[in-house]
Amino acid sequence: MQIKRKNKLIVQKYGGSSVANPEKIEKAAKRVIAYAKRRNRVVVVISAMGDTTDDLVELAKQINPLPSEREMDMLMSTGEQISSALLAMAIHKRGVKAISFTGAQVGIITDTDHTQAKILKIETDRIKRELTKGKIVIVAGFQGLSTALEITTLGRGGSDLSAVALAVALNADVCEIYTDVDGIYTTDPRIEPGARKLKYITFDEMLELASRGAQVMHTRAVEVAKKFNIPLHVRGSFSKKEGTIIMEKPPVIEEPVVRGVTLADSEAKITLSEVPDKPGIAASIFTILARKSVNVDMIVQNVSHKRYTDISFTVPKKDLKKAIKISRQMSRSIKAGAVTSDETIAKVSIVGVGMKSHSGVAAKCFSLLAKNRINIDMISTSEISISCVVKKDAGKKAVKVLHKGFKLDKIKT
Amino acid sequence: MQIKRKNKLIVQKYGGSSVANPEKIEKAAKRVIAYAKRRNRVVVVISAMGDTTDDLVELAKQINPLPSEREMDMLMSTGEQISSALLAMAIHKRGVKAISFTGAQVGIITDTDHTQAKILKIETDRIKRELTKGKIVIVAGFQGLSTALEITTLGRGGSDLSAVALAVALNADVCEIYTDVDGIYTTDPRIEPGARKLKYITFDEMLELASRGAQVMHTRAVEVAKKFNIPLHVRGSFSKKEGTIIMEKPPVIEEPVVRGVTLADSEAKITLSEVPDKPGIAASIFTILARKSVNVDMIVQNVSHKRYTDISFTVPKKDLKKAIKISRQMSRSIKAGAVTSDETIAKVSIVGVGMKSHSGVAAKCFSLLAKNRINIDMISTSEISISCVVKKDAGKKAVKVLHKGFKLDKIKT
Repeated sequence: MQIKRKNKLIVQKYGGSSVANPEKIEKAAKRVIAYAKRRNRVVVVISAMGDTTDDLVELAKQINPLPSEREMDMLMSTGEQISSALLAMAIHKRGVKAISFTGAQVGIITDTDHTQAKILKIETDRIKRELTKGKIVIVAGFQGLSTALEITTLGRGGSDLSAVALAVALNADVCEIYTDVDGIYTTDPRIEPGARKLKYITFDEMLELASRGAQVMHTRAVEVAKKFNIPLHVRGSFSKKEGTIIMEKPPVIEEPVVRGVTLADSEAKITLSEVPDKPGIAASIFTILARKSVNVDMIVQNVSHKRYTDISFTVPKKDLKKAIKISRQMSRSIKAGAVTSDETIAKVSIVGVGMKSHSGVAAKCFSLLAKNRINIDMISTSEISISCVVKKDAGKKAVKVLHKGFKLDKIKT
Repeated sequence: MQIKRKNKLIVQKYGGSSVANPEKIEKAAKRVIAYAKRRNRVVVVISAMGDTTDDLVELAKQINPLPSEREMDMLMSTGEQISSALLAMAIHKRGVKAISFTGAQVGIITDTDHTQAKILKIETDRIKRELTKGKIVIVAGFQGLSTALEITTLGRGGSDLSAVALAVALNADVCEIYTDVDGIYTTDPRIEPGARKLKYITFDEMLELASRGAQVMHTRAVEVAKKFNIPLHVRGSFSKKEGTIIMEKPPVIEEPVVRGVTLADSEAKITLSEVPDKPGIAASIFTILARKSVNVDMIVQNVSHKRYTDISFTVPKKDLKKAIKISRQMSRSIKAGAVTSDETIAKVSIVGVGMKSHSGVAAKCFSLLAKNRINIDMISTSEISISCVVKKDAGKKAVKVLHKGFKLDKIKT
C-alpha cells in the first residue's frame, strides 16, 4: 500500500521590486504557478508595485504635511490591493485558479496603532477554504484590519511580516521571501566584489546584520519567524538558484566565526563635553532623549579626568537636529560644556554566532583595522557582534579589510 | 419660545474631474467645509481622481485582456479609496473633523454582479455615528460590499448612484452632484452657443436627455432619485452659481413645451432588405439580437411592396460588426436579401414633458428640419421625446435649427 504524500503549504512573499511592472508581475505569476503545479498549496503575499507606496506618501504630503495616520493607512493600503488583483489576473490568464484578498478580507487582525500596527491574530478560515478549492491565494501584504474595524498598515517591512505571520498561522512548511537580491551575502557586494552568498544563517545573526545596516529583511519579520521557528528562504525573484535559509540551527557542524560584515552611514555622533562625573547624569540624558523618541544607538563615556567626563553617542541623522537641541538644554541644566556633532562617521560591524565561544575576535578586528591605519572612534559589542565607528571615508576600506581578514571571501556555507 | 432649527443633512458628490489633482481636492475640501460650517451635516461621495479608473483598466488589460470581474473590482475600487483619504487629509489641514470610508466599511451592500452591482441596502449606523461626532463623512463612490463579502463596483456613473442611494438611506434634505459643467443645458453649448442653463428639469426629462446623448448624469442614478423623490442639484465644482435642480414637479406653472435638444452619433444603421412580410419575422430578428446582447435602439419597417419589406434599425457602433454578422445569418435563414449598414448617421432628439399635452410638436419638428433641407431617415417617438436620424454631417445643423425653432435660446427656467 502506498501512503499518499501530503502536499506542502508554501507561503511566498514578493517584494515591490519583484512586481514593479506588468512584465515582472507576469514573471512572478509563472513562478507561483510552477510551485502550485507540483501539487503544493500556495499562499502569496505581495507588496505594492515598485515605488507606489512612496508615490502615495508624496501625494498625501502635497495635500497635508502632517496627514492623519488613520487616513494614511486608508491611502497606502491601496498599493498592495492593486498588485494583488493584477497578480491574480496574470495567474488566471494562464488558466490557473487564484483569488486575491485585502488584509482585512482575509482576517489579519491588528491593534489600532495606525501606520505601524502589530498583528494580533489571523483568522485563516477564508484562506483555507479557498486553498481547499484548489486556488492560489494572494494576500495584500503590509496591511490588516484593526480591532476597531479600521484599515491598518504594519510599517516598514510590513509585507515580510504579513508573510511570516501567515506562515505561522497556517503552519506552513516553508516561507519564501523573494526579493531583488538572491540571498544574504557576507557583505554588500557593491562594496566588496568578493562577497559570498551564505547558504544558511541563524535568526540571531540575521537580526544582528539587519540592525547593523543589512537591508534585505526587516528585523520584526525575522523576530516573529525566530519566535515560531519558521525557516525563511530569502531568494531572488528572477533567479532559479537557491538563496539563503534563515533558521534556528543550520545543518553545519563547524561554522566560520564571523559570518557577515555590514556598513551603516545613516548615523551621526554627538559629544557632550565636561559632563559632571556624578552617578545618574548619563541615565537622565538618555531618558530624556528616549522620551523625545530619539533612538540612541552607541554610547561611549570617556575615562573621566578630574571630576568631568565626555559622553559621546550616535543617533540617526534624521534625528540629529532634535538631539542636538535636547543635548544643549541638558548641558545647560547639568552645567556641562559644549555640545558638538559629527556627521562624517560610518559604523562597521562584524556578526557571527560563533563569536560567543571564540575569544580573540574583537582583538583581531581591532588589530586588522589598526594595521590598515583605520582609527576607531567608538566601539560597542554584543554577544554575536562587534561594531566600530570610523571616519566616514574609511568605511568601505574597513569593510574590505575585515571581509578579507576574517576570510569571508573563502566561506563555503 | 424659539424652536431650535434642525440642521440639514446634505449629500454632495464630486466627480473625477472635480478631484483630478491635489489643488482641485483642496478646492473641494473648502467647498465641503463651507457647508459644514453652516451647521449642516455633510456626507461626501467622491469619485476616483481624473483618469485613475481608466489607467487601472489599462494596467489590467496589459496583464490580462479578459480579466476576471471580481479582480477588476478589487483593482478599480482602490481609485475612490485614494481620493477619499486625500480629501479627508485636505479637510483635516483646515482644522475640521472628517473621516473617509470605503463602500464596504460603510455598509453599502450590493448583489454579486461584479463590475455592475446593484445596491441592495445601506447600513447607515456607522455614518450616523460619525456625523453625530461632528465629522464630515467621506464615502468612496462607485463601490460596495456584496452579499458574498466581496468588493464590488457599480458600473458607469456608479458614484452618482452611491450618492443618490446614500441620500435616500440617510433621508437627506438635498443631494448635490458636482461636476465639470455647471448644470443641465438646453443643448450642448459646444454645438449651439445660445444654449441656456435650465433652472429646473423633471426626472423624466432628464432620463430622456440622458438616454438620448446628454452625458451629465447617468440614468440609473436619476431613476433611483425619481423612485424615492430625492431632488438632485447638478452644479459646477468650481462655480458658486446655482446649477439645475432635477425634481418631480418643478415650481413653474407654464413650461416651454420643448426643454432640450440632444445629438448622439454613436450609433450605426443596419438595413435588411427584401424581408418576407410574414408575422413573427421581425420579432425573431430582434429576439436573437437581444440574446446576443446587441442593444437595438430605433427600428423602422418600411411599407411593404408585394410580399417583401425592408427593416432598418440602429445599434451602438461598437456592436456593429457583431450585429451585421447576426443579421447576415438571419437573412440567409429567412431567405431575405442584402444586409447593408451606414455609420454616417446622427440622432437628433427633442425632449420635454409638455409634449404630452401639446399636439403639433412632431409636425413642427419635421417641418423645421424640412425647411432647412435636412432629410429625416428614421423617426421614433416617446410620450416626451421625438428622435430623428439624419445624415451625420447634418447633425449639428439640425440641433441648431431645432434649438432656435423651439425658442430654447429664449428659455428662462
